Amino acid sequence: MTLSSPSFETVYWKDDAVVLIDQRLLPHEETYRSFRDVAGVAEAIANMTVRGAPAIGVTAAFGVALAARQFPGDEAAILRACDQLAATRPTAVNLFWGIARMKACMRQHGPDPDILLREAQAIRDEDIAGCRRMGDFGAAYLKDGDTVLTHCNAGALATAGWGSALGVIRSAVAMGKRIRVIADETRPLFQGARLTAWELAKDGIDVTVIADGAAASVLARGLVDAVVVGADRIAANGDVANKIGTYGVALAAHAHRIPFYVAAPFSTVDLTCPNGAQIPIEERAAAEVSHVAEHRVLAAGVNAMNPAFDVTPSHLISAIFTDNGVVLPPFDDNLARLANAN
Amino acid sequence: MTLSSPSFETVYWKDDAVVLIDQRLLPHEETYRSFRDVAGVAEAIANMTVRGAPAIGVTAAFGVALAARQFPGDEAAILRACDQLAATRPTAVNLFWGIARMKACMRQHGPDPDILLREAQAIRDEDIAGCRRMGDFGAAYLKDGDTVLTHCNAGALATAGWGSALGVIRSAVAMGKRIRVIADETRPLFQGARLTAWELAKDGIDVTVIADGAAASVLARGLVDAVVVGADRIAANGDVANKIGTYGVALAAHAHRIPFYVAAPFSTVDLTCPNGAQIPIEERAAAEVSHVAEHRVLAAGVNAMNPAFDVTPSHLISAIFTDNGVVLPPFDDNLARLANAN
Repeated sequence: MTLSSPSFETVYWKDDAVVLIDQRLLPHEETYRSFRDVAGVAEAIANMTVRGAPAIGVTAAFGVALAARQFPGDEAAILRACDQLAATRPTAVNLFWGIARMKACMRQHGPDPDILLREAQAIRDEDIAGCRRMGDFGAAYLKDGDTVLTHCNAGALATAGWGSALGVIRSAVAMGKRIRVIADETRPLFQGARLTAWELAKDGIDVTVIADGAAASVLARGLVDAVVVGADRIAANGDVANKIGTYGVALAAHAHRIPFYVAAPFSTVDLTCPNGAQIPIEERAAAEVSHVAEHRVLAAGVNAMNPAFDVTPSHLISAIFTDNGVVLPPFDDNLARLANAN
Repeated sequence: MTLSSPSFETVYWKDDAVVLIDQRLLPHEETYRSFRDVAGVAEAIANMTVRGAPAIGVTAAFGVALAARQFPGDEAAILRACDQLAATRPTAVNLFWGIARMKACMRQHGPDPDILLREAQAIRDEDIAGCRRMGDFGAAYLKDGDTVLTHCNAGALATAGWGSALGVIRSAVAMGKRIRVIADETRPLFQGARLTAWELAKDGIDVTVIADGAAASVLARGLVDAVVVGADRIAANGDVANKIGTYGVALAAHAHRIPFYVAAPFSTVDLTCPNGAQIPIEERAAAEVSHVAEHRVLAAGVNAMNPAFDVTPSHLISAIFTDNGVVLPPFDDNLARLANAN
């Protein structure tokens, strides 16, 4: 089979509004919501209507473009809107990167709504094109017939399109390689079961879901040729923050000498962050653990902890696929070199 | 605080029936069901009304006692009932151990219903007493103020009472040590969130639940002093089959030099099984992964794999607490020595 592009949209601009597929309702409903003010966009990022590091970077950029229309000529109000968007989620650096790029555009061109909208559109278009390049770089590391394990959703739904980790798989499939995917369900919010399984099945790519706890034994049993995941922030030394559960998968892959790849646009790299210990980790509501939809699974009155991300140390990572090329160890040197080359 | 015994019953005999707390309904309902024939008991084991390796061993023994009443004097029918009970679940060896002990009793005393019931009662009483000893042995390895991470439910609910892994915690608390517990929720059936959290909270022991994927980062962050889990089968070399997800926790504990303890009655040791690769691993229905209660989490038409257990290799295990004493590495020698001593 070959693929052109995914059969749905994650985030786009239409009729003076940012349109988002509501990822909380997937896989049961494919509902698109329009947002016409920055407060709505900020809430959509915080409540995970949209999620995935590159996708929230693009969405925040559109949020700034909306603010420029809401507050014509009022740079201070637009900067306050930037702060509002930046306060939604702490871990994914693409959010801050997208907002910083919109601020830089405003510094250069003033608060011109049309120029800022074009900049946001450019960020979206570059994200899609970057995912395609990243996918093609990474796909060279997959062989025909490989089974790939992934965690969470680093798919078209987590980017403006094509995907990071799933972009690598889409590119391999587009090259004619037969690829099977094993997707961790990814508690607590089931992004693997709900989103990765949905978008791969929709594109005709073979996918099997497992409970997160099954990943280590699936790797031990030799059922997986490579692990590919996304990233929410990559520190200067190559440590990677990604969805909670990623670190455990990396440990198991390492124990069984299975390559562990990270796919992320270069906007995910934070060279100001020396290592993973410096990456702020979002703690989300205990209700995400205690309930599934309306169903309470946890005994009443019992506490839950809900860290949304973990850090995989760079020594467990085989390679990082970016839109600017493949980064191999030693990551500190090679990330800095690639940053300077672009 | 001190503890005498848990404030609920897992499995007992009353009025010519085996009574089981229905663990599928916890933590929402504390419902006890009576079973008067062997078919009902076999179904209760298969559908996990009762679960936990020692508890299903005790339940199966009562099932054989029921068969002796259903089929008076008919040894062949009782032996067929034994086969029916043995066919319910493949991994936990205590099931086969309990049935074998009842068969041995019948070989010695004939199919006498009263003698067989007394034997089943003895198995139950010994399980509780054994858990107490095991708990006391293991509690010596916990310090006042420790935080213990556990996976699944190796509690009073998984045994005839007191528990194996949670028995160690109960014994430590009974000795006056302050112990906090972090419980993996344990997908797909949420035995940690539903059962471990319920029984510890009921006994006033501090418990916090996390998604399974959070275990590795919680261990990395230094929040845990020791891991204690149960076992469904222990091979002659010390490899341990336990609930899916255990192996990943063991890898993470090892990476962070946190002791990883297994607590199980000696009936869990299968010296006929040379290593973990020989332990049959039950594959359960995909519906356990695709649904939570009535709520479908998985995209329709997507496959799920659902191995119920994994194998933790002995080199990741710090010590095995049994009712006959503590087993330290090298496990092959020391398990055989302890078996011969008893």
